[in-house]
Amino acid sequence: MSSTAGQVIKCRAAVSWEAGKPLVIEEVEVAPPQAGEVRLKILYTSLCHTDVYFWEAKGQTPLFPRIFGHEAGGIVESVGEGVTHLKPGDHALPVFTGECGECPHCKSEESNMCDLLRINTDRGVMISDNQSRFSIKGKPIYHFVGTSTFSEYTVLHAGCVAKINPAAPLDKVCILSCGICTGFGATVNVAKPKPGSSVAIFGLGAVGLAAAEGARVSGASRIIGVDLVSSRFEGAKKFGVNEFVNPKDHDKPVQEVIAEMTNGGVDRAVECTGSIQAMISAFECVHDGWGVAVLVGVPNKDDAFKTHPVNFLNERTLKGTFYGNYKPRTDLPNVVEMYMRGELELEKFITHTVSFSEINKAFDYMLKGESIRCIIRMEE
Amino acid sequence: MSSTAGQVIKCRAAVSWEAGKPLVIEEVEVAPPQAGEVRLKILYTSLCHTDVYFWEAKGQTPLFPRIFGHEAGGIVESVGEGVTHLKPGDHALPVFTGECGECPHCKSEESNMCDLLRINTDRGVMISDNQSRFSIKGKPIYHFVGTSTFSEYTVLHAGCVAKINPAAPLDKVCILSCGICTGFGATVNVAKPKPGSSVAIFGLGAVGLAAAEGARVSGASRIIGVDLVSSRFEGAKKFGVNEFVNPKDHDKPVQEVIAEMTNGGVDRAVECTGSIQAMISAFECVHDGWGVAVLVGVPNKDDAFKTHPVNFLNERTLKGTFYGNYKPRTDLPNVVEMYMRGELELEKFITHTVSFSEINKAFDYMLKGESIRCIIRMEE
Repeated sequence: MSSTAGQVIKCRAAVSWEAGKPLVIEEVEVAPPQAGEVRLKILYTSLCHTDVYFWEAKGQTPLFPRIFGHEAGGIVESVGEGVTHLKPGDHALPVFTGECGECPHCKSEESNMCDLLRINTDRGVMISDNQSRFSIKGKPIYHFVGTSTFSEYTVLHAGCVAKINPAAPLDKVCILSCGICTGFGATVNVAKPKPGSSVAIFGLGAVGLAAAEGARVSGASRIIGVDLVSSRFEGAKKFGVNEFVNPKDHDKPVQEVIAEMTNGGVDRAVECTGSIQAMISAFECVHDGWGVAVLVGVPNKDDAFKTHPVNFLNERTLKGTFYGNYKPRTDLPNVVEMYMRGELELEKFITHTVSFSEINKAFDYMLKGESIRCIIRMEE
Repeated sequence: MSSTAGQVIKCRAAVSWEAGKPLVIEEVEVAPPQAGEVRLKILYTSLCHTDVYFWEAKGQTPLFPRIFGHEAGGIVESVGEGVTHLKPGDHALPVFTGECGECPHCKSEESNMCDLLRINTDRGVMISDNQSRFSIKGKPIYHFVGTSTFSEYTVLHAGCVAKINPAAPLDKVCILSCGICTGFGATVNVAKPKPGSSVAIFGLGAVGLAAAEGARVSGASRIIGVDLVSSRFEGAKKFGVNEFVNPKDHDKPVQEVIAEMTNGGVDRAVECTGSIQAMISAFECVHDGWGVAVLVGVPNKDDAFKTHPVNFLNERTLKGTFYGNYKPRTDLPNVVEMYMRGELELEKFITHTVSFSEINKAFDYMLKGESIRCIIRMEE
């Protein structure tokens, strides 16, 4: 038992007081975990577009002050009553979704969309008591997607914490908490390309590059990157992308360009932009008879996916995925082992590292499109 | 070698001279099969909606005079040069699509959409020489989907002929040539419901009932029939349908009705009507996390499938199928064996039998909605 167990911990957290304004490092009070909860000491965290999206709060209900952050690696400080799968000292990854283990989704082999712990971006409090565990001078600070990893200590529902191999370097595997697993799993768990097959990846940001890495690991021979920004093509090569299409360079729809390049269509497509037009193109560019397209990117709420139904009847499949179909507690330890065996390469996603006090630099890198992943080191 | 091999055969055929007009039994001349072709003596044929649709010729390019018919069972009379998988005397089912065995689709385990022999409803001649093998007093009569089984003898591409167990009764297994395999395969090969699962079947015509039969054989525990004609519900029970929804009986969309009945959605849905609204409902009524919807019915050419992309992102899958994903030559013999073992029940699809001279009665039964399948006996 750690000496802090059951006590309020005072520590540093990067608080977002207002939409779009720089985070401020503050001293916060972190309450002990309640029944079914875990308090995690964060050692490394990284910045994902989803943090930036909700920090900008354009179009969503703003919820401030809030502690963002959902990609991280840490060590269990203490656990609340009834938590049996974790103990102080365990190395762990927090996840923005969860695995209660009891609901129909957790009991289904096919789903990872836990009824209890499925992502909820509007909720800023813990599920058990609708309270925040963070406060500054008694004033509550909201949580973000149940993780709030931009804090030296954070409290999570135990179902959102995956225990991993303690030998795994947390400054690398922390990026598996969200974007990398989302893209990688979309390919290896859902699209499932066969060795020697062709795969189109729409969008070459972190998630798309992780989807490409999944295609590389699967042995796909043609990995076609599709992006509106041609400068991304060079960097994508190390993720296995070996052909490039910029839709802006063509007069015809990109699905037709890809069909011509591939004698009728690619075997698999993975859509990682969230653009509705890219979704339609990704579906329509797969080969009839066997093509599978997988949607990953999150669309606008008013978007409509529209296609001629004959595109389905000609034996194409369209699937969507959430967090790469990984069940956080069950599957993340195995993804960490893939990294440990050298199959999944994480280093190439990490383009920057900053100390916690420089966290706003991570936002700058992402906003300027300079970073894939920027690691934030909690210890200075 | 039969005595007729290499000779023109004079026999009876039901010729459609004009759109929508009764067929006329005529004496036709059937030329011998050319290289890669087979001449089949038809013993039994049955009537399918697709025959009626092209006979009515509403909206398609009319092609007359023509010999319709594509569900049948027969015996090989003679084979053309180079045909090795069939010999005179073999029992066989003709199929409106084919399996050349050489194209990428035939070589793919996942596809049955043969590049060479895929259904072509506009073509009224043989592929090899663009000629018809049927004539009356020297005037050619067009073929239909490469089968033209409303004739005592017909000529087909050998890739469209499946050799089957000679012990199988041709007056029963003839219905496997099209509709029954289309629906049954959509469920067992594509939707693949697990034992104990729930399946919604949209449309309770012959194809939908065959899809229900697939769900019954798969061990689904809830088989929900959806149809606008409530009188179909009683008859559907013997195909395993045990719950019924008529969308007309509800004020809300049928996908919402089904979601309420099933605590969030069915595990699988199979759409057998071709109505675009039913396609959308079939997709939206499957459960998030694991639901799979399969489209079978053929839409109008201007229809657009439209849904919110989040319905995919919540881990639903939409697939289409053609002929139940069966490869005609490879898979049909096995479906016949399923019938022989008593697993797939065919008798209950057969509601009427007529002699060849009464073929127009079969059209009447179908147009009045009285029949599921009407067998036409070629020998009086």
